[in-house]
Order: sequence, then structure tokens, then C-alpha cells
Amino acid sequence: MDKSTQYKMFNDPIHGFITVPKGIILDLIDHPYVQRLRRIKQMGLGYLVFPAAEHSRFSHALGAMELAQRILNNLREKDTTISPAEFEGTLIAVLLHDVGHGPLSHTLEFNLIEDFHHEMMTLAIMRKLNREMDGALDLAIRIFTDQYPKKPFLNQLISSQLDIDRLDYLKRDSVFTSVYEGSVGIERILKTMRVYKGNIVIEKKGIYAIENYILARRLMYMQVYLHKTVLSADKLLRNIFKRVRELIASGTDLYQASPSLQFFLENRPTATKGIARRVLEQYLQLDDNDVYQSIKYWQYADDPILADLCQRFQSRSLFRTTFLDGTPNARLKEKVRMKTQKVLQAQGLPHDEAAAQYFYSFDESYSEAYRYENEGIWILEEKDKAVEFSKAADTQNIIALTEPVVKPYVVHLKAFDVKR
Amino acid sequence: MDKSTQYKMFNDPIHGFITVPKGIILDLIDHPYVQRLRRIKQMGLGYLVFPAAEHSRFSHALGAMELAQRILNNLREKDTTISPAEFEGTLIAVLLHDVGHGPLSHTLEFNLIEDFHHEMMTLAIMRKLNREMDGALDLAIRIFTDQYPKKPFLNQLISSQLDIDRLDYLKRDSVFTSVYEGSVGIERILKTMRVYKGNIVIEKKGIYAIENYILARRLMYMQVYLHKTVLSADKLLRNIFKRVRELIASGTDLYQASPSLQFFLENRPTATKGIARRVLEQYLQLDDNDVYQSIKYWQYADDPILADLCQRFQSRSLFRTTFLDGTPNARLKEKVRMKTQKVLQAQGLPHDEAAAQYFYSFDESYSEAYRYENEGIWILEEKDKAVEFSKAADTQNIIALTEPVVKPYVVHLKAFDVKR
Amino acid sequence: MDKSTQYKMFNDPIHGFITVPKGIILDLIDHPYVQRLRRIKQMGLGYLVFPAAEHSRFSHALGAMELAQRILNNLREKDTTISPAEFEGTLIAVLLHDVGHGPLSHTLEFNLIEDFHHEMMTLAIMRKLNREMDGALDLAIRIFTDQYPKKPFLNQLISSQLDIDRLDYLKRDSVFTSVYEGSVGIERILKTMRVYKGNIVIEKKGIYAIENYILARRLMYMQVYLHKTVLSADKLLRNIFKRVRELIASGTDLYQASPSLQFFLENRPTATKGIARRVLEQYLQLDDNDVYQSIKYWQYADDPILADLCQRFQSRSLFRTTFLDGTPNARLKEKVRMKTQKVLQAQGLPHDEAAAQYFYSFDESYSEAYRYENEGIWILEEKDKAVEFSKAADTQNIIALTEPVVKPYVVHLKAFDVKR
Amino acid sequence: MDKSTQYKMFNDPIHGFITVPKGIILDLIDHPYVQRLRRIKQMGLGYLVFPAAEHSRFSHALGAMELAQRILNNLREKDTTISPAEFEGTLIAVLLHDVGHGPLSHTLEFNLIEDFHHEMMTLAIMRKLNREMDGALDLAIRIFTDQYPKKPFLNQLISSQLDIDRLDYLKRDSVFTSVYEGSVGIERILKTMRVYKGNIVIEKKGIYAIENYILARRLMYMQVYLHKTVLSADKLLRNIFKRVRELIASGTDLYQASPSLQFFLENRPTATKGIARRVLEQYLQLDDNDVYQSIKYWQYADDPILADLCQRFQSRSLFRTTFLDGTPNARLKEKVRMKTQKVLQAQGLPHDEAAAQYFYSFDESYSEAYRYENEGIWILEEKDKAVEFSKAADTQNIIALTEPVVKPYVVHLKAFDVKR
Repeated sequence: MDKSTQYKMFNDPIHGFITVPKGIILDLIDHPYVQRLRRIKQMGLGYLVFPAAEHSRFSHALGAMELAQRILNNLREKDTTISPAEFEGTLIAVLLHDVGHGPLSHTLEFNLIEDFHHEMMTLAIMRKLNREMDGALDLAIRIFTDQYPKKPFLNQLISSQLDIDRLDYLKRDSVFTSVYEGSVGIERILKTMRVYKGNIVIEKKGIYAIENYILARRLMYMQVYLHKTVLSADKLLRNIFKRVRELIASGTDLYQASPSLQFFLENRPTATKGIARRVLEQYLQLDDNDVYQSIKYWQYADDPILADLCQRFQSRSLFRTTFLDGTPNARLKEKVRMKTQKVLQAQGLPHDEAAAQYFYSFDESYSEAYRYENEGIWILEEKDKAVEFSKAADTQNIIALTEPVVKPYVVHLKAFDVKR
Repeated sequence: MDKSTQYKMFNDPIHGFITVPKGIILDLIDHPYVQRLRRIKQMGLGYLVFPAAEHSRFSHALGAMELAQRILNNLREKDTTISPAEFEGTLIAVLLHDVGHGPLSHTLEFNLIEDFHHEMMTLAIMRKLNREMDGALDLAIRIFTDQYPKKPFLNQLISSQLDIDRLDYLKRDSVFTSVYEGSVGIERILKTMRVYKGNIVIEKKGIYAIENYILARRLMYMQVYLHKTVLSADKLLRNIFKRVRELIASGTDLYQASPSLQFFLENRPTATKGIARRVLEQYLQLDDNDVYQSIKYWQYADDPILADLCQRFQSRSLFRTTFLDGTPNARLKEKVRMKTQKVLQAQGLPHDEAAAQYFYSFDESYSEAYRYENEGIWILEEKDKAVEFSKAADTQNIIALTEPVVKPYVVHLKAFDVKR
Repeated sequence: MDKSTQYKMFNDPIHGFITVPKGIILDLIDHPYVQRLRRIKQMGLGYLVFPAAEHSRFSHALGAMELAQRILNNLREKDTTISPAEFEGTLIAVLLHDVGHGPLSHTLEFNLIEDFHHEMMTLAIMRKLNREMDGALDLAIRIFTDQYPKKPFLNQLISSQLDIDRLDYLKRDSVFTSVYEGSVGIERILKTMRVYKGNIVIEKKGIYAIENYILARRLMYMQVYLHKTVLSADKLLRNIFKRVRELIASGTDLYQASPSLQFFLENRPTATKGIARRVLEQYLQLDDNDVYQSIKYWQYADDPILADLCQRFQSRSLFRTTFLDGTPNARLKEKVRMKTQKVLQAQGLPHDEAAAQYFYSFDESYSEAYRYENEGIWILEEKDKAVEFSKAADTQNIIALTEPVVKPYVVHLKAFDVKR
Repeated sequence: MDKSTQYKMFNDPIHGFITVPKGIILDLIDHPYVQRLRRIKQMGLGYLVFPAAEHSRFSHALGAMELAQRILNNLREKDTTISPAEFEGTLIAVLLHDVGHGPLSHTLEFNLIEDFHHEMMTLAIMRKLNREMDGALDLAIRIFTDQYPKKPFLNQLISSQLDIDRLDYLKRDSVFTSVYEGSVGIERILKTMRVYKGNIVIEKKGIYAIENYILARRLMYMQVYLHKTVLSADKLLRNIFKRVRELIASGTDLYQASPSLQFFLENRPTATKGIARRVLEQYLQLDDNDVYQSIKYWQYADDPILADLCQRFQSRSLFRTTFLDGTPNARLKEKVRMKTQKVLQAQGLPHDEAAAQYFYSFDESYSEAYRYENEGIWILEEKDKAVEFSKAADTQNIIALTEPVVKPYVVHLKAFDVKR
């Protein structure tokens, strides 16, 4: 059969075209579990700061799969053998790598299920799909879980310091946020990627593209992912859920939360012993809309604290974030609490200590642009010599930039200035 | 006071930066009525075909406001007097021009309120905001409703064949859909726009930018807005709502529809005599999420027709669209109905005539790239001579391309081929 | 051997990367005959209007070769057999397709050799290279001259209404001139190109990309290639050469013309009976610099007419172009001549009829966006049905836009207005 | 008069549009001294590595002037007073800032005139233009030479670590070389620039744009300006001129060098006591074409060394560059010399020590991305507190990257490997 009818083409502002092979890949894309990702924003609350960053995890998943195709084709051109089954398995693993994300992913991850990480859910969903599809995902799961020692580079494409996930989301997020400084030249990275002794390496002529990639990642953390207003919006959302759980614990009616969300809020499931079937099924019903719909109605809740927090959220009257010079001391914490209580009192809101805790929060942000121990990026300096990026020529100074950055901050009401 | 602290800057992938004057403009942007637009996609169901076209009416509203600023500043540079109040009034009118849109706007517009058009709602909301803000929107409303005879060009910027709405959405939609052919050189249009005898005209050197704009608009209709799959998805969504209303009429419980949506489905309000206060309030609670949440739960409805339609929607198992060579005759209609019934029967679904009507639909698409009668685009050919675009030099042949295009089509189950 | 070391990569702002296979292709690129194209601007005098349009025929040749690779690889993916020799032969033919261009190509083409067309020279150079390289260009020459009936589509890639030459130069010129309206979505054209019954066709889903391509080409003619100022600069350059030849004919010393240019000006070779060896050798020494160097020194020529024309050229004091409503009549010609003479007299320049003819010129511009007779673009409407583009659905109206456009004009001194 | 007819618009791929005020600015642009810059490539021999980097100093000069307008308008919006005369003076100074560059600027700068720097020539030309134009450039010259203490920030725009020259050329060069990693977000820099206590500072929200700017500059040095092949081509060109001067010194006929170039080669003028009038006049005749024309004919010189070097240049048969681990010792130098002599002998070329020196060269490359002492970039951290960039928050680690990088290298024949 003519190959050209075996593909479907989607347009994509990031990669131009996304070519989807018909068969299992297209079936998976149209599966409700993957379609669910259309209703989960890639950047969570980031759209509150970057108005056009409204793109979903679905378009990221498609984009990553397209990159996987380009990379695998490119590796084949460089004489690395990749069988059709391995090709397809890798595509599936990349397509599904984030399928376990829940609503407002990172923000709420720990609020719905205890002892939980979204990778666990991804694997649970992949296994469920595999059962539905009679084992068609066997190889994909082995690659995803790094149980395919024959070709370790396939797993590295899915999870490493230079994985396809990062390549697509950095590029995609920098375009949709229009943060020029975070833009990555993925085309050159793709062109200079190759397999050396079973592992992914970058040819020497790609070294500056890697430097740029690491620095861009650093800037995206600084400017976007850990943006002051994003931090404060995240905290507001978490406090809304903290309040809701407390209200539920005290027997208050939730007033119009979505049924699936209600399941999680009432049952507080845990993933300590794996993910129960009933939890999985409810989880697969959840998406961002459950959260937004609930907040919309909680604006009119009887509880004045919940209502106030949700009204703030709807009108973008967020808290302020103030970065601190060091770990906050008891006196500062006391000061912020008292100022908060005073403002709440003036606004006729509950203002005891317990109430105040919903209106401020001390925390610290953490970012790490590149981790070179154990899992670094390797540069093929000469025909038979690969060195870890931080040890390559011309790059030593870069490493200073990749040390983890920890910044303490406090989120608080705009009515007062923490530093005065 | 220093002007530079009077502005807030947003990033935007389309225009680079969006500068928002603090004061009433920023207050309006943060108002829940405008924030609501974040939850309504600009292109409705277009994302089902163009995966990255997930942008909201909110980012379009901001983008349009930014263009308005650029255009007004540019007109001032060309010695057109625009007072600060007129400047602000126009910005407000542009910012709010689509605030009356409801969920899945064009698709569902006529399904929620009878005798309704979203412009009516826009005006109602603007008046409500004006009351809240003690008349601060007076001038904006006059400009929006063309009751400002002193400077007719201000209204032309809001509603004409070359209005700011179109400039922003064409550009924005072509980028997010990655339909290269629909891309418009708005920068040149902006630079060559000016006021001549009170009306907006384009300087002669902008004539090819206008030609390109009209042709791009034509291509966006052909390739995007009236794309086969978009047409079929629209029809599926409308049929879901048709079924729901019928079920409600027969007293069936809606099972988990959102409260606001339920209000409209049960009460079937009409706008014949204007928009009642209660209707307005419920409308302001509605957004795309109400629709998506409802469909998510309707998948499990007792009614097999509704459940089937909603399951199709969730897994993107859409109908097929077949364009017809002419108006369909009775025989074709009969044929499609019978084939539909046969397929439904085989799938164990209700398959009488009444049931079948939810699974196919005859209709026609309509597009018109440029309307030159009464309201055309004017070109300033010489210092004192403006001519309507279709009468300018070098453009006569274009006009053939701007005639309305009407294409009959049928949407039907994929199981059969209409033309055989 | 590892394939990845068999390629060299160049950066290109139009296509991202240009991959050059080592071996004959790289040898040809480094050959002085091809390197010569670095010193001939792709758009001739276009840079006088579009300051950044300074790109050379060399970068266009590389870009076209890159497109050829992409297209051939794509056709192979669609199961069209192309042997390594055919692949290389096509690349060579595309790389060299413009190698016969002379300085300021279209402007001066007929001024250096009589009865000449640059394609003749291209072929002569290809044959010379073929002799040098012991027949390595045999197949390339057969493909270039359409003497390869086995696979007619290969020649169509080199010379047709949709050839690679046009795809690259339209895209490249629109970027460097920054004429947004002339931009072509070549990626979609590439993706939808295929071979059907031995000929290049476009799959149906590429039809709007073709429409856009034709309209973009039309706009590039209108806005760029036949821009008023380009027309007038071309005329000025031709008149400089007309004057020089006349001076040489009357025995005047050329004062510092470049030796190769002098050869052509003095000998006036003809190509009626093919291209003589000596002519070919001198031609291969010529590039834009010979023209610019000569004009630089001719500014100080004793002949006041030549000096004046060359000074105009150096300071961009060009003539004015006025488009006429119809074929100019004798009275208008008389009027322009007399006005010209009057101005020349006032400036103390020779002002008899013979002198005046260097300062004005009547001519007409000609453009044709698409020629559908005999050699049109074919659309694969259904599995087994190809139709010529103008007969395909939805495109009929386009054809009106593709009729040849002929515009009479006069180029004259800026000191007077022709229409008054 | 209507302002809109007082401007001329040019298209530019980097900035979209370049708006040129009619009057002195347009007169200067059309002046032969500025038009001369069209014939000098911005990146010298960089086009040999980056085929599309063929842009001239002319388009850079226009682009810089456009940026100057945007910056000055922006500063005015932020309430910095700039008079019309200061505005125009700054534009002139920016437009002319590079007018003193000679052919193949940096490569040949020290080869034409001794004790020379192109800034001296820029000033000499500005003064010559000022005399021609009756003092119209008085203020421009004061600003250019930092003799305008009233507004020091105007000179900072022309010459500092963040001057307009760099902003335009970094952006322009990164686009034309298609080196993605060197791309700079100039729009954000423009938007966040302001005047504080008479000096240019960057608002805090622009700090990452500055970080990106410095890192991009670093990468452009590493990847482009000091690219191995660029270094080797530069050396080849310099050696050609070294040989030519030696031949002239020994009384050999230059065979077809351009007259102006011959003037410099024969007279070896010096700038120790300023620039003599006759030198200035000849210099203004010189451009890249003089060099390229001469090399074209020197290929056929009688001297076998000159002929060989020029043939290499024409067919891009460049030397190889090998970076060294440290300062080369006598033994290495000896080794390279002997290997060179051996190869020359085998090729039948002169191969004594004196001859060999034209075929290899030891040198070191130097780059410095940011110099913070005395003239750093200042960040406005708070309303009344500006700090130098390297001392601002979050940037300390950057500084490691900005230390001068010195890399010793040897350029040599490709026939041997230095490290073996």
C-alpha cells in the first residue's frame, strides 16, 4: 500500500507539521484518556501571567511524539538500527509520557492523592491501555520503565537531562509565553544527536546548542515557571483546596463541586500501596474544568474564607510574592501573621490565627537548570571520546550557572509591604 | 508622575508585547466578566482539527486592544486629533467587543437563548459595567454603538470590513492553526491606515497588504473556519444539545449538567424583548467548561442516543462531512436517512426516523471574504481621491474571489459513503 | 562508513540547515564557477529599494539544492523509486541551474552578448564542467535538458510552473525584501507533492498552498520585481551601458573599465552560432563587481553624459517612473523629450535629441503569475484523477488573477511631472 | 504639513519597517559616502562559512538608525526630554557610526593605513560631511565624540556595552547566519531602557533580557566571529596582502589591482598625524569590490605564491585552523614550518622559509562578552537604586562567563595534522 495514505497530518505552530502514523498511534491519540489531556493546561496557572500560555498537555504530547519521529529517523540515517517495533514503542512511550497528569498538575498533585507522583499514574494508565489493547504496549512500557537494556538510548530519549519532553515543552512554552530568552534551537540539537556505545551523545558541533539549551532552561525557571505571580497563584489555589478539605472534614456541604473532584476531596485516597482501580477510574474523569467549575460556584459558598479566596481567584486579585534575603525568622513570620489578621479584620473577614493562615504562606522556590552527576549530557568530542558536558572545552564556566537556585519567599496580602 | 509606572506589560506571541494602561483598562481586564473569556476558546471546536488552536477569547481581546493602541498612536502621528477620553473609550470598546460571547460561541449561540445575537449581550454587559463604574463607559458605549458622529472612524475601527477584531483574530488564528496561507501582514496595514474626511482609509502603498488581507481571509474560511471536520464537530455538538432539550421537554433528568447551563436548557429564555436581568446573571456564569463538564457526564446518561453522541465527542469519533454538487434532492435525503437507520440498528441503537435525525444533517456553508457594497475598504489613491478597494487600480480581478461562496454538504456516519 | 561524516552542514535563514553531501556536490560548490555566483546578487538592483535584499545567486543555488533533497526524499517516502544516480544528477542540475547568469543578470543580459539567453550559458558551463570531471555530469545534463524520458518529473522539478527554482527564490526574496505578502508556505507544498503517472502532482490537501503560491508570485511581481524604482534603476543602468558602447564605437577610451567587461563592450560577441570558447572564458571572469567598479570610475569620465549617469547611480539619484493609462502616443513622447531637453540645458548638460534619449525611456512591464496552458500545475483530486489547477474545485476564480499584466510606463527626470 | 508625507519607509527583515525622516537624514543616506557602505559586507569574510551572511554595512546602518528612533521615542514616553535637534543629532551619529569602515574592515584595517583605527576615519568623514552641509552635523559630532555633557546618555546609545550598534548587529548577524543561539530579544531591552540620573539604565524587569544579551554575544563570538574557518580565511586574505606589499616593495608590477587600492599599497600612508586629505579621498573610493576584483586578477599573477594564495581564495580551498592547548613552543613552530615547506615542495611551489610563512600562521583569538569595569550595564533595581549588572541579584554567576577568552591557534595547510 502507498505509504502516503498511512499518515495523518496535523498543523502545529511549533513544529510546522505533526505526522501521525495511522494504526495504534492514531488510535491512542483518539482514546478518551489521551483526549483528556486537551482539558489540562500544560503550564497550569501560568496563563494568569502569560495570557497566551493556554496550550494543553495534549498539544505538547503530540509535539513530543513528532520530535521523537524526527530524532529516530535522524539516528537511523546515522546508521543506528532501530526496528519498526522499537520505533513504534518509543513513539507510544513519548506520546503517553504525561498521560498521568491530573488537573493543574504540579499545583495540585499532592492535594488529591497522598504519597503520589504523576509518573505512577502514567504507568498505571499505560498498563490499563495495554490490557485493553491486548499487549500492544508491552515494548513501550519496557522502554518507558527502562527495562529494555538492549537499547538504553531509547529510555534516555524519554527521561534524561536532554529528553524529548524537555525539548518540546521548553520550545513550546517559550513561544506561547513569548519569552524570547527561553527559546531553544532544537533543530540543531536534533541534527547533532547520535548514539555512541548505546547512549545518546551530542556531536561536538552541537555543543553551543546544548549550552544555549541549559541557559534557556535556567531562564525559563527564573522568568516563567517560578515567576512571582505564578508562585502566588499556585499558593492561592492550594489554599482554596486546603480550606475545602477542612470544611469537608468538619462536615460542611461542598456546594456544587464536580462529582469526581468530590470523590477525591472526601475520600483522600493514598497511593502508598499503588493505585486502586476505583481511584484510577475517577482520576480519568478529572481535568482542569473540574477545578474551575468548582471554584466558580464556591465563590458563593457560605464559608466566608472559601468564598473570599475563590472570588480573588476569579478576578485575579492575587496575593503578592516577596522574595526574602534568607530563611525567614520567627519575628518576620509573626509580623506577617499579625498584619494579615489586621487586614482581614478591617475587611470583616474571620481573622483569628487559623483563618489568617489561608492568606499568607512562607515557602522557597527551587530550580536546577542542569544536573551533571550520574545523568549528564555527553558530548562526542572526538571520534572515540565522549565527555560529560561540564567537562568539555569552553563550557567550564557554564557550570556555575547550573547550580540549584533556592529562593525563600513569602506570599501575602497586597495591602501591606513585608519589608517595611 | 512618571508614565512608565502607569503601564503593565504582558507578553504575547502575536504582538510581542501588550501594554496595558493602569486605571480603568486594567480594572476591566481583571473584572470577572472579562476574565470569563479565558474560559471560552476563540475558535470553538477548531482545536479538534488544529490541536494548538486552544487560545481563548481573552487573549484575543487583549491583542485587539493592543492593536487599537498602535493604530490610534499611529493616526495621531499623522495629525489626526484624538482626545485622551476618545483614546480610552475606543480601547474599552475594543477590549469588550466580544464580551457577550457565550460558551462555544457560534456553535451554540442560537441554542441557549432564542432570537439572540451575541452583540446584544455585549451591549448589555457593557451597560451593566457602566452602571457599576458610574458612567465611565459612556463614551465607549457611544463609540461601540456608532452614536458618536463627531468621529465616525472610531466606530469603523470596531466594526467594519477592516476592523481591529478581524486584524487580530485572522493573525492570531493563522498562527495558532499554523495555516501559513492565512497569515496577514498587519504591520503594513497599521502603518498605512489614516483618517480622510472622518473615515478610515488606506494609503495607496498599502493596497497589496489589503489584497493579501482579503485573500487570507478567504483562505481561512476555506481551510479553517469551514473545515470539513469543524463542520461535522459543530453539528455533533448541536445535536447533543438538541437531544438534551428534547429529553428535558419530556421530563428526563439531566444528570449532572452544570447549574447555569441547566437554567438555559430548562427555561429556554428569549431575547425578543431584550435580555432579562436573571438571564444576564446566569449567562455571566457560563463558559466552555459548563459544556465540556456536562458532556463528560452525559456519556453515562440513561438515554442511549445522548450517551452515544457524547461518547463520540469525547473520543473524537466524529461524523463525516461530504460536500454536495448542488442542493440535495429528496432522494438523497431519503437515502442518507435509510443508511443511517441501518447502521444504528446494527449497533443496537434506537433507529427510528426520529432517532436517525441526530446522526446526520444537511446544511450549507457560507463565506464571504469581502463585502464592498456600502461598507467597503477605501484606498487613498491620490492626495484628494479615495476609491473603494474593488475599484482601485490593479485590483479588479480580486473581486471575483470575494463573491460569497455557498457549499451544500451533508454530515453523516462514517460507516457509509454518501456518493455511492 | 558512518553516513554522518559524509555531509557538511551550512546554516541558512530560509531553510534552517543546508546539508551538502561530500563528493561531487561539495566539489562543485567549491568550484570557482559556482563561487562566482557569490558575487552576483540574486535580485540585481532590487537592493536599491529593499536595502536588505543583498543575497547572492550562490545562497539561492544552495537553498534550491537543499529543497531538491527534501523533495526527492519525500517522493521516495511515497514509494517513488529514485536511484542514487538520479538523486545526485537532479541535485547537480538544480545546483547549477542558474550558473550561467552574468552580472546584473536580467538587466544586462542582452547588453553583453547578442542573441543570448542565460540558459545557453548555463548549459555551456555544465558541459565544460562535465569535461573537467570526466562525464560525471552526464545524467545531470540529460535531466536538465529534458532528455531523460524515463522520469519526466525530474526535469519538472527543474523547470516548470512549480519548479524548485521558484520555490526557493520566492521564499528567499520575500524574506530578504520583507514583503510579507509574497511569502509562500513551501513546507506544505513539499509535503503534498508526489509523482503520478510519471509527472509531479499536488495532493488535494495542498490545493490552497498552491493558490497561495500563485497569488504570492503575483504580488512579488507587483510589489518587488516590477517596482517603480527597480524599473527606473534598471533603465539607468542600461542607459549607462548604451552610452559606453556608443563611446567605444566612436573610439573613446573607457577609462578604467574592468578588463573582462572591456572585452565584451569592445567585441560585442554574438551567441547566434553558440558560445565561442574565448567568450565563455571571459564570461566566467565577470560578476557584479566588474559593473560596479566600472561605474565608480566612470563617474569621472570626460564624457559629461556618462559621468552624469554614473554619478546619479552612485548617489541613488534615480529617474522617476510614471505608469501610463495606455500605449503612449506621439504627442506624449514629444512632450517628454522636450521637457527632458529643457532640464538638461538648465543643468549645463548636452541637450540635443541624441543626448536626451539617455534620460528618458518608454517601455512596458509584463508579468504572468501562472501559465496553465501546456505546462500547468496538476492537482490529484482523487485516487485516480488529476486535474489542472485552474480546473480544480474552488479555484476557478483564481484564474482571473493569473492573466498576464502589461503596464506601459515612462522613466524620466524627476524635475518634471509627465501627467501635467 | 501632514507628517505622513515627511517619511519614507523601507522594508527590513530584522525590524519590519525602517522609517526614514525626509530632510538631512534621507540626504545623508543617499550620499555616496553612505551608499559606499552597500559595497562593504557587515561580516567581512563570514559569508564563506555562513552562506547567507551577505548583508552590508549599509543595511546595518539603516537598522541601527531605526532602533535609535524607537529607543528615543520610548525614552520620551518615559518623560525624558529630548529636543528635536538632539533627536536628529543622535540619529545622524548612529547612522554614520561605521561610515569610516574600509574594505573587509577588521581583516584589512591595519593593512591599508598604519596607526589607524576606523573610528578616526568615521570622524574625518563626519567632519567632511559637516563642512559640505554647513555645520548641520555639529551636534551629531558632539554627541558622537562625547562632548555633550548635558545628556551623556545620548553618547552611551552610540558607544557602550549596550549600544545600538551591538543591538542591531547581534540581531542582524544572528538572523543572517541563522545562529539561533545568538539571537537577542531586543524588543524587551528597548522597552525596559530608561534614563536615570542622566545615564542609560535597564529597568529590573529587563534583567534577564540583559543576561540573554550578554550570553548571546558570547555565543556569537564562539560560533561566528571567531569561527575556525573565518579565522583561517582572514589569515589567507592578510597573507595575500602581505605578499602583494612585498612584491610592490621589490618593484613588481601589481597586474590589475584597482587604482585606489594601488594607491594604498604603493604609498603605505600613516595616520599617526591624522588623515591627509588625499588619503581620505582615495579611501572614500575603496570598498570590498576593489579587493575582490584584485584577487580575481592576481590569480594569474606571475608570482607563484601570490597566484596560489589567490586561487585558494577563489575556490575556497582555505587553510585549516587548529586550536592549541597553550602558547605554542619553538618546537611546534619549527614542526609546522618544516611540514609546510615539505608540502610546498611537493606541489612545485617556492618552499624556502620566506615562502612558507605565507602558508601558516600562529595567533590567538580574543573575545570578551561583557566588560563591567568603568562602563558596565546598570540595572535600576529599585526606584532610586541602580546597580551594575554583575552585582545585581541572580546574576553573579553570569560573570564567570564574561571573562575574556583567549585561544591560541595555528592556521596551516590542510595536507597535514598539527597534533600528530
